[in-house]
Amino acid sequence: MNSVKVGLLGMGVVGSGTWTVLERNAKEIARRAGSTIEITKIAALNVEHAKSLVNNKAIITKDAYEIIKDPDIDIVVELIGGDGVALDLVMAAIDNGKHVVTANKALLAKHGNKVFAKASEHGVMVAFEAAVAGGIPIVKSIREGLTANRIEFAAGIINGTTNFILSEMRSTGLPFKEVLKQAQELGYAEADPTFDIEGVDAAHKLTLLASLAFGIPIQFEKAYIEGISNLSSDDIIHAEKLGYRIKLLAITKRREDGIELRVHPSLIPSGCLLSNVEGAMNAVLVKGDAVGPTLYYGQGAGGEPTASAVVADLVDITRLHTADPENRVPHLAFQPESLCNIPILPIEMVSTSYYLRMRVKDRPGVLADISKILSDLNISIGSMIQQCSDKDSEADIIFITHDSIEKNINISIKKIESLEFMCSKITRIRIEDIS
Amino acid sequence: MNSVKVGLLGMGVVGSGTWTVLERNAKEIARRAGSTIEITKIAALNVEHAKSLVNNKAIITKDAYEIIKDPDIDIVVELIGGDGVALDLVMAAIDNGKHVVTANKALLAKHGNKVFAKASEHGVMVAFEAAVAGGIPIVKSIREGLTANRIEFAAGIINGTTNFILSEMRSTGLPFKEVLKQAQELGYAEADPTFDIEGVDAAHKLTLLASLAFGIPIQFEKAYIEGISNLSSDDIIHAEKLGYRIKLLAITKRREDGIELRVHPSLIPSGCLLSNVEGAMNAVLVKGDAVGPTLYYGQGAGGEPTASAVVADLVDITRLHTADPENRVPHLAFQPESLCNIPILPIEMVSTSYYLRMRVKDRPGVLADISKILSDLNISIGSMIQQCSDKDSEADIIFITHDSIEKNINISIKKIESLEFMCSKITRIRIEDIS
Repeated sequence: MNSVKVGLLGMGVVGSGTWTVLERNAKEIARRAGSTIEITKIAALNVEHAKSLVNNKAIITKDAYEIIKDPDIDIVVELIGGDGVALDLVMAAIDNGKHVVTANKALLAKHGNKVFAKASEHGVMVAFEAAVAGGIPIVKSIREGLTANRIEFAAGIINGTTNFILSEMRSTGLPFKEVLKQAQELGYAEADPTFDIEGVDAAHKLTLLASLAFGIPIQFEKAYIEGISNLSSDDIIHAEKLGYRIKLLAITKRREDGIELRVHPSLIPSGCLLSNVEGAMNAVLVKGDAVGPTLYYGQGAGGEPTASAVVADLVDITRLHTADPENRVPHLAFQPESLCNIPILPIEMVSTSYYLRMRVKDRPGVLADISKILSDLNISIGSMIQQCSDKDSEADIIFITHDSIEKNINISIKKIESLEFMCSKITRIRIEDIS
Repeated sequence: MNSVKVGLLGMGVVGSGTWTVLERNAKEIARRAGSTIEITKIAALNVEHAKSLVNNKAIITKDAYEIIKDPDIDIVVELIGGDGVALDLVMAAIDNGKHVVTANKALLAKHGNKVFAKASEHGVMVAFEAAVAGGIPIVKSIREGLTANRIEFAAGIINGTTNFILSEMRSTGLPFKEVLKQAQELGYAEADPTFDIEGVDAAHKLTLLASLAFGIPIQFEKAYIEGISNLSSDDIIHAEKLGYRIKLLAITKRREDGIELRVHPSLIPSGCLLSNVEGAMNAVLVKGDAVGPTLYYGQGAGGEPTASAVVADLVDITRLHTADPENRVPHLAFQPESLCNIPILPIEMVSTSYYLRMRVKDRPGVLADISKILSDLNISIGSMIQQCSDKDSEADIIFITHDSIEKNINISIKKIESLEFMCSKITRIRIEDIS
């Protein structure tokens, strides 16, 4: 049986997961691939730790370039993360004619166009199933499973940390900061959680999904990003009463005039499958014009789930590396020369419905004044709730609008907030009636 | 740009859906495939109907062999159904060196081993994404997306007709026969619904999933099949109260001593994603040792959803037909020489928990007698509900057992039914605590 030789860069959680899965399932994987897939060299920052995990200590090195220059290695697996040294190593590996497998969404979201162009130039593959939604084969499903379709939108819960926090906030009623602390203690959130809780990680992944869905270059810098750190438990409770759950949703949608690309907290109907994705799980809903709605669900992070995607890519490359480069599946689903520069729409042009919560003085005329501002801006109200607040003389009002242009919503918020009877800023959360 | 020439056998719902999707999305598909994919000949029983759908009437023929013998045609798409003439045509197409795409689960479940062997012999591909769960890319996900994993089980709702009927029975409280009639009027059930409602269609698909998951030959004749025609609305209501929904579940599970392969109504926990798959939708839950649980959801039938899978297969073949046959993805996920003959377990050896409902005379000692029979057979009771029936002197009892061997359950049912105080047969429904 043929053997494919792999060099592993990085022996953290996903690196050691990949090593473990390839070892444990070697026979099962070879039965599928028709070749054995063997890690013949591992570069690790912490050499001692790596040696503790591997029987054959001789394959561990501190020098990543030893792997990249090794003529016996067919595929380099980059599991270092970030876009510093990892980018240099990936580019050097491609220059040396290696195929690359990576789980690095930050790198591809920021430098993917350059990386894929270089890969095409050298006739090698850069596979990245593990970069989006961990073990869920979402890259393959969009890129190969839905090729018949004009994709209409993809919307997903693609950051496990934030979904865990939101699920906990809902079930315990605790505030964000407290739940974040718990998540850090349980290992669901990092010591510096900024990338996760501010939506940056989800936006990295969304940017890749948008390219796969619509055949556009990767344009991370144009994504609208809003995290969950300002969400209050109150809004989660109000949402529940109104028949919604709040999720950090990553959405990319094709419209006639361009493409929406946005990550932010969203109210989604409690009955739909996406709203029932709880804890650290991920799910992506993809709608195509022929297939209709499809949903993909699974673990979006963790050593072995992510390794599952890494190894699937290794098997794919094992099968395809003897094929004509031009007959391989294109990196971004569409042939490189067929990528289109459809404009990414600024958030002000997004059209959706909105949840607006505010506290006002409880007296006549308040509702009339607010309603007039909304109607003047062509914002129509789907439903409204007014309830007593904890102060006698004040009331809380929640509006659910029909679909409106965000620009108009922003203007209305400014105008309403300047009214003399307002006792709070307005909390604005977008609503997605997806299914 | 290259052009791949396709001959279409059958112009029914899926045939015309395939024609429509290839026409409407021709540009989008070519941007992905790097070739145009063109239907150059269509064989239809009803030539006039086919001509009404297609501008270029000259490509319509009544003679399917005209397509199979056409040297210009690269790929034959078989959308006739059944395993009579369709089998002859598929075998002849392979003999003539054509690649084949088919949506025909009955044909593959019964003759797949023979079909794939002949295809390998001739170096052609037989692609069948459309044969399982319509537009959901489940074949690709298991075969290519989860190659790293030792699959533990696959469990799915893979027949839309029965899921529609069960959803309606639950929401309306109407009996099976009445809902079936509605389903027929709405086009969700065929005039002769036997294949769907008796679980045969689901078993065809499950048989293929089992081979893809475990690397075993296709063994439809060993599947256990039980349909939904005997389900009563009472059981659906009782299930709901106990925190379950009833679904027609197709399950294949790897155990140490063999593989379970079974289709039957199942109680599944109301909170899990599968139980929330309603109406004619399909979903498959696949658990791998590395990735954990993953779920795939979408439309399992209908013209365009199924066409989505047919066209995805056409694109795959377009890409792979110049590749070495030995480097292509194997038909059944594992290399043909690596298929294992793991035994399929008879239903008597299945181990799961059970819902047992019975009516008894309301008098002392009844519970003691029944409990003794169960405990003598090593069946332990998880919970029990006793309630008044519509007759004063009788009571309804429902037992939920812990995991037990089906053989013992069968013996216990026989013994209990022979007790003198029994007023009914026992209704037995299996419970799956999957997640």
